[in-house]
Amino acid sequence: MSRRPLCFSPALFAPFTAPSAARLSARLSAALATVFVTVLASAPLAAKELPPKPSVADVIKASQGAEWRALDPASTLYLELPAGRVVIELAPVFAPHHVENIRLLVREGYFDGLAVLRAQDNFVVQWGDPDEDRPRALKTAKARLAGEFTIPLTNDRGFTRLPDRDGHAPQVGHSNGFPSARDPKTGQAWLAHCYGTVGVGRDVGADSGNGSALYAVIGQAPRQLDRNITVVGRVVDGMPLLSVMPRGPGAMGFYDDPAQRVAIRSVKLAADVPEEGRSRLEVMRTDSASFRAVAEAQRNRGGPWTKVAAGHVDLCNVPIPVRRQGS
Amino acid sequence: MSRRPLCFSPALFAPFTAPSAARLSARLSAALATVFVTVLASAPLAAKELPPKPSVADVIKASQGAEWRALDPASTLYLELPAGRVVIELAPVFAPHHVENIRLLVREGYFDGLAVLRAQDNFVVQWGDPDEDRPRALKTAKARLAGEFTIPLTNDRGFTRLPDRDGHAPQVGHSNGFPSARDPKTGQAWLAHCYGTVGVGRDVGADSGNGSALYAVIGQAPRQLDRNITVVGRVVDGMPLLSVMPRGPGAMGFYDDPAQRVAIRSVKLAADVPEEGRSRLEVMRTDSASFRAVAEAQRNRGGPWTKVAAGHVDLCNVPIPVRRQGS
Repeated sequence: MSRRPLCFSPALFAPFTAPSAARLSARLSAALATVFVTVLASAPLAAKELPPKPSVADVIKASQGAEWRALDPASTLYLELPAGRVVIELAPVFAPHHVENIRLLVREGYFDGLAVLRAQDNFVVQWGDPDEDRPRALKTAKARLAGEFTIPLTNDRGFTRLPDRDGHAPQVGHSNGFPSARDPKTGQAWLAHCYGTVGVGRDVGADSGNGSALYAVIGQAPRQLDRNITVVGRVVDGMPLLSVMPRGPGAMGFYDDPAQRVAIRSVKLAADVPEEGRSRLEVMRTDSASFRAVAEAQRNRGGPWTKVAAGHVDLCNVPIPVRRQGS
Repeated sequence: MSRRPLCFSPALFAPFTAPSAARLSARLSAALATVFVTVLASAPLAAKELPPKPSVADVIKASQGAEWRALDPASTLYLELPAGRVVIELAPVFAPHHVENIRLLVREGYFDGLAVLRAQDNFVVQWGDPDEDRPRALKTAKARLAGEFTIPLTNDRGFTRLPDRDGHAPQVGHSNGFPSARDPKTGQAWLAHCYGTVGVGRDVGADSGNGSALYAVIGQAPRQLDRNITVVGRVVDGMPLLSVMPRGPGAMGFYDDPAQRVAIRSVKLAADVPEEGRSRLEVMRTDSASFRAVAEAQRNRGGPWTKVAAGHVDLCNVPIPVRRQGS
């Protein structure tokens, strides 16, 4: 298990007839060998099949150690649920004040004993304080913060642009591991809402959030939220613990019955957890050659399974590989 | 419940501070009223807020009866799971031979007693025959069918184009309720892989599927599968029964341990179920004015919550409203 990449990002593989997984992989290797031969010999078969190409898994396997980075413990959250740990990488470059406030909330123990309040299918899972009448008091954290919906793109020094066009922004790509977008005309950059993106719930006012109510995207990228909400990070491990939450029966997936809520054991900063208790994860550097190869593997797959290469990959469909350290 | 639209498509609402749902809706109405006034008076506040616009929910409420259609019982599948019923609308226009073969499989009772074999996070849930060694015998259904990956676009008479650009195809929109794409240059049309899309698992050969192994998309649209797999329909109700399936620990989300598999009680055609046992669902016609308004409500939201209107909606982010008949 620890040797398997932990990508929860879009499929490394395509669906195929279920019972034949083992037989298929054998057949694939055989087919690849055949293609190599026939391509060289330019036999008719070569015309029928796309040339073989490294898959996302192949690229990960061939990647160099320097193309991976460890998570910064000061910007890594552990959301501890009864079913296990969700690891969230925070994005201080894009939301410095909210990330700092979340650090304060966490160190106050604010989230400990709170709950997952909402699971709306194909949208978000949201957690925070269920008690509307007696909300948990804040000690050191701020109650309201100005929204950090965009930043000057000059503040984002880690941007690697994707060649693929996007309907929502003139430029999209990845900023030090986070799917992001930018508009040179306005000079703004922002984090995009993709599967696993973590944002700050807010009320009508742009300054009505403070990081005490957070959500993670569990469905199709709700890009209409981009630039309307402060994005503070993304889930890098444990996404399935959130995505399988029973959907709430109430409007917007809220759990009408408190008994339906999943309790939060604790939320901690990795920096506050003893070394031996930390999740040792590495994320592939999004400015690396291997990451560009991952995007290309998703953009244009090789034969023999693939009949038509897409020629395009959507921002939120680019896998961002995550693995255990030393794997 | 029966009066609530059943859209499992992307959010009708945005995330906000959880405990204040009730207070917010009150505040929203107030805010809307304010905006109406201030817009008329062109007070400063009007400049700060986007003008109010009907939400997806508002459009659904205001829609006309003729803008909805009942499902065709001959092209509607009931996948009966221990947790409840998943309703799948089949697309005979795009996959006539596979849809016919699925009808034969269903009437043979082929799926009854089989299982969900795989749940891969942010990708697909797949069901079929778990027994590799003694596969269930076919009676009247075909064992292999030529892939129906695309059709001549002249065969698709129900296409309503979206104005929004797409990275995967020159034109995208909806074909009688199904997200679809087309390329006038090649003269081809095909169904797109969006959340809830149901496709035919296959092996390496384009003709290696027959509809006996099916999957539903439970994550970010895997558009790279478009034109590589026969899409036979989409889930119109019960999507949460599939999307919360525990993710399989095996490669590609397969359940290593047979005990992890969810049994399929039966798969039936609605036409073979007595009237009183049928799910009375209506889908909003995708060639209706209200559906265009739904897409616009998702594309450009009004104030006061929204600070920036997206100005674009991705094909797979357009809600396709479904409701109970008479609701």
